[in-house]
Amino acid sequence: MRRVAVVGAGMTRFGKYLDRSMKDIGREAVDNALQSAGVEKSALEAAVVGNAMAGLITGQECIRGQVVLREMGIQEIPIINTENACASSGTSFHLAWLYVASGMYDMVLALGVEKLYHEDKRRSFAAIGSAVDVEQMQQILAGMKAQEQKEKSNGEKSGDGAGAGKSRSMFMDFYAAAARHHMERHGTTQLHFAKVASKNHNNGSLNPHAQYRERYTPEEIINSPEVAFPLTRLMCSPIGDGAAATILCSEEKARELTTKPIFVRASVIGSGKDMQPGDDDIVTRSATRAYEQAGVTPREIDLVELHDASAPAEILGYEELGLCPEGEGGRLIDEGITEIGGRIPVNPSGGLLSKGHPVGATGIAQIYEIFLQLRGEAGDRQVEGAKTGLTQNGGGMVRGEAAAMAIHILST
Amino acid sequence: MRRVAVVGAGMTRFGKYLDRSMKDIGREAVDNALQSAGVEKSALEAAVVGNAMAGLITGQECIRGQVVLREMGIQEIPIINTENACASSGTSFHLAWLYVASGMYDMVLALGVEKLYHEDKRRSFAAIGSAVDVEQMQQILAGMKAQEQKEKSNGEKSGDGAGAGKSRSMFMDFYAAAARHHMERHGTTQLHFAKVASKNHNNGSLNPHAQYRERYTPEEIINSPEVAFPLTRLMCSPIGDGAAATILCSEEKARELTTKPIFVRASVIGSGKDMQPGDDDIVTRSATRAYEQAGVTPREIDLVELHDASAPAEILGYEELGLCPEGEGGRLIDEGITEIGGRIPVNPSGGLLSKGHPVGATGIAQIYEIFLQLRGEAGDRQVEGAKTGLTQNGGGMVRGEAAAMAIHILST
Repeated sequence: MRRVAVVGAGMTRFGKYLDRSMKDIGREAVDNALQSAGVEKSALEAAVVGNAMAGLITGQECIRGQVVLREMGIQEIPIINTENACASSGTSFHLAWLYVASGMYDMVLALGVEKLYHEDKRRSFAAIGSAVDVEQMQQILAGMKAQEQKEKSNGEKSGDGAGAGKSRSMFMDFYAAAARHHMERHGTTQLHFAKVASKNHNNGSLNPHAQYRERYTPEEIINSPEVAFPLTRLMCSPIGDGAAATILCSEEKARELTTKPIFVRASVIGSGKDMQPGDDDIVTRSATRAYEQAGVTPREIDLVELHDASAPAEILGYEELGLCPEGEGGRLIDEGITEIGGRIPVNPSGGLLSKGHPVGATGIAQIYEIFLQLRGEAGDRQVEGAKTGLTQNGGGMVRGEAAAMAIHILST
Repeated sequence: MRRVAVVGAGMTRFGKYLDRSMKDIGREAVDNALQSAGVEKSALEAAVVGNAMAGLITGQECIRGQVVLREMGIQEIPIINTENACASSGTSFHLAWLYVASGMYDMVLALGVEKLYHEDKRRSFAAIGSAVDVEQMQQILAGMKAQEQKEKSNGEKSGDGAGAGKSRSMFMDFYAAAARHHMERHGTTQLHFAKVASKNHNNGSLNPHAQYRERYTPEEIINSPEVAFPLTRLMCSPIGDGAAATILCSEEKARELTTKPIFVRASVIGSGKDMQPGDDDIVTRSATRAYEQAGVTPREIDLVELHDASAPAEILGYEELGLCPEGEGGRLIDEGITEIGGRIPVNPSGGLLSKGHPVGATGIAQIYEIFLQLRGEAGDRQVEGAKTGLTQNGGGMVRGEAAAMAIHILST
């Protein structure tokens, strides 16, 4: 397989765009990526589009990529639509990489685009609830409802709001449980998670594409409204709209186009499994394959964009990605090692917590950040001397483990 | 890129399965494909799953492949979800081919699975309506409704049922218009289309996996209820549920597994474009690339499974695929050339008209038929001496042209 380079990247600011369509934000990201690469859209030989939830938000299923791209005159070439929940555009980047690595095409667009905001908020939450085994979830919820009614008819106190409405915070319930488990096992504290959120919000304040650009102290993070202990609202990624795009090409083409190609050293997709005692989790399994594919160790990674859908996921991510031994995630944030200027900066873009998390756009937005950083074009949040970066983009859940994981390693 | 072989294929009978889940029919197709290949599921290194409409039918978006495959213990490996409307599984087969052709994986599953039937029929039709530019369609329908109301208030006669309800037959309206155009231009008659439908229903009567196994004379086809002239109901593919799967592997692995590997000679995906006078249509453009990739001419094709969502699409397909010159499609059916036993049998499986059309399963079901035929295992409908076959699988519509096209050429 051939070496593949990223030669252009673009994104919209993440935010709330009730008056803009998927076509409109998609066009902005693609135009920016083409301009960044210095190529015309007519040079594209194929396109892979990641989107998770347009079907349930707007009714647009089936041919989302064609609908978005035709509007800007990108047509006739193969257009692949892919989804993997919050890892949809990590997956679209992987397939674009595969097209070029295989030798089939020389110049391919990877796009992630998502609109989660809808005038009817219930529709947004229902769409997010589709990132699980829906049939199984309906059975669980029906069981909970039956149990509640039984307790009610027995005169017992009803549960804490379980039932259909519960699904909106299901992912955060899962993260809260994982956080509490880590606290019990390793002495991690709520303050550790607050420090992660504070760091990422501070980083995001330096990023013009971030949805939220306020700075917060760890105390302010802890004092924001509780979602599910130890999570507070400022430790959770927000709902948002946005798009991000990259142009991938062969090494030969890249050398013609730029003196600063960024190479894809590893592109790995993993899926969840039914865990047995002693099994590695999906992040560790996928990262191990990525390090092997790239021929690097975690010590050689200069910066990371990881999937901090909630602050505890970042502490767990430090350990799962091998940035520190198990149980020492809290120490990493205490010692400032993952701040910009630390030994291994994590989420210099602000991460999902501050930059935002329009799910199908997140994976490529992470790669956009690594692309800028490795080119030395990240402005106020530049990580000095960064040569190798890693992205981790997870999605969905089946039987208690993430359903999909995309890991990419890029280097100068 | 490497040669890729198909070593196993399986499918469910297409039909109405209100009491079976996507997991259940998916499992049947995958089990059959694994058994056909003589490999264990543990040998699979990746899976690509095509589905078009589960999001709008059951609410299951995002991770449809993981949900279906985990149930049968296929986990941990990369699982890619893809959709391209009615060409969803042609697309999933293409990506599975790409994984093996690139050298990345040696053994990959391609699955297409769809449930269109729902207790609430409106949901099925709404889902099918998502295979267009939904935003544009809403604008068009709003414009038609405004016009109707204006005419009504002016005391004029209202249109012929235009409005929101119209979208359910939109694809058939399109096929009817294309058929009338062909009739005007080339003297094709309604009887030609009826002969196509009769041939395919007769072929389907020989196929135990066909949804409808009744035989009909051309007269019976013409006398079935009119949908939109010249289309009658028996000239239109039905709604259905079903799944189809194939196992793809490297040539080396194939030689270990079987003495009858079927090789993928061409795998092409095309997209629609804004047509200019003189432009080739999307089938012709995509088929031209496929013939070039395979290094064959249309004369070297021994049998074809093509996308007869309606009977006229088959007559047009003869010409677009280069099986005959433009305008001579009617002659092909008159002379029996495309019957089993003719020079180039088309849709020996019964095609979409008789075998059925659970949209996301159709592309791989076509490949299933070619696989059986090239192995000489097609029983009563065997095409004698078939060595090279072609599948054409189209999907969706944007601005009056199909949105996606998958063409595959396979040979012994």
